[in-house]
Amino acid sequence: MEECVFCKIVQGKLPSTKLYEDKAVLSFLDIFPITKGHALVIPKNHYRTIVDVPEKELGKVLETAKKIGAAQMKALGAKGFNILQSNEKEAGQVVFHAHFHVIPRKEGDGLGFRWPSKEAGKEELYKTQKIIKENLK
Amino acid sequence: MEECVFCKIVQGKLPSTKLYEDKAVLSFLDIFPITKGHALVIPKNHYRTIVDVPEKELGKVLETAKKIGAAQMKALGAKGFNILQSNEKEAGQVVFHAHFHVIPRKEGDGLGFRWPSKEAGKEELYKTQKIIKENLK
Repeated sequence: MEECVFCKIVQGKLPSTKLYEDKAVLSFLDIFPITKGHALVIPKNHYRTIVDVPEKELGKVLETAKKIGAAQMKALGAKGFNILQSNEKEAGQVVFHAHFHVIPRKEGDGLGFRWPSKEAGKEELYKTQKIIKENLK
Repeated sequence: MEECVFCKIVQGKLPSTKLYEDKAVLSFLDIFPITKGHALVIPKNHYRTIVDVPEKELGKVLETAKKIGAAQMKALGAKGFNILQSNEKEAGQVVFHAHFHVIPRKEGDGLGFRWPSKEAGKEELYKTQKIIKENLK
């Protein structure tokens, strides 16, 4: 993937502030941190979205994300962390190499999620359940 | 875990609109959907946060989340999806049984993430890298 920024980081053609690396997984600091310590965890192989990442690699990526989050809490006095992952531009994906954000959190850090949300009726839930289950394999 | 809502759902003591279930993992629709089709994926065993979830179970949970997201896109005409996971109340965790949100996305669906963000200096990145790496095991 000649034009992929994350592939270039994996190959060492672009610099990054690495936190962890093994054969399958790389973690480095986001240069536009949402909060201090905001890290990315990626499979080294190129996949556009999580849908393309094979089960074994996905497990390794998440195990790393978990450990990075635990380390952020110890290292930075964070009280918690979020894992956020975006697939396709409609979900906010900007770099099209599957990646997980690991974001340290403290009370009053200014980060928030804004969404319209109200309790769903049973009828609506049943309809949605039916159509998703039909498309699940 | 007598008082855990998700344990009660796993045990069938509270109702849920299930999408998928196996020995280790359960997925069901969020009754306060951020967008239509918003699903949760949880390990059946009780763990407070992702930090407590063993690697093998975590991999199974993510493999399910991936498949639920792909099914949401096919089923609902979503163009993408987010995976969001929150650890501890400072990160927005409300139910203290580790869980992943899988949120279908369409353009203009009103969902957004708000955060203060600016490019970090190299000095700051190096300092943060050092302290996180010291706390990573």
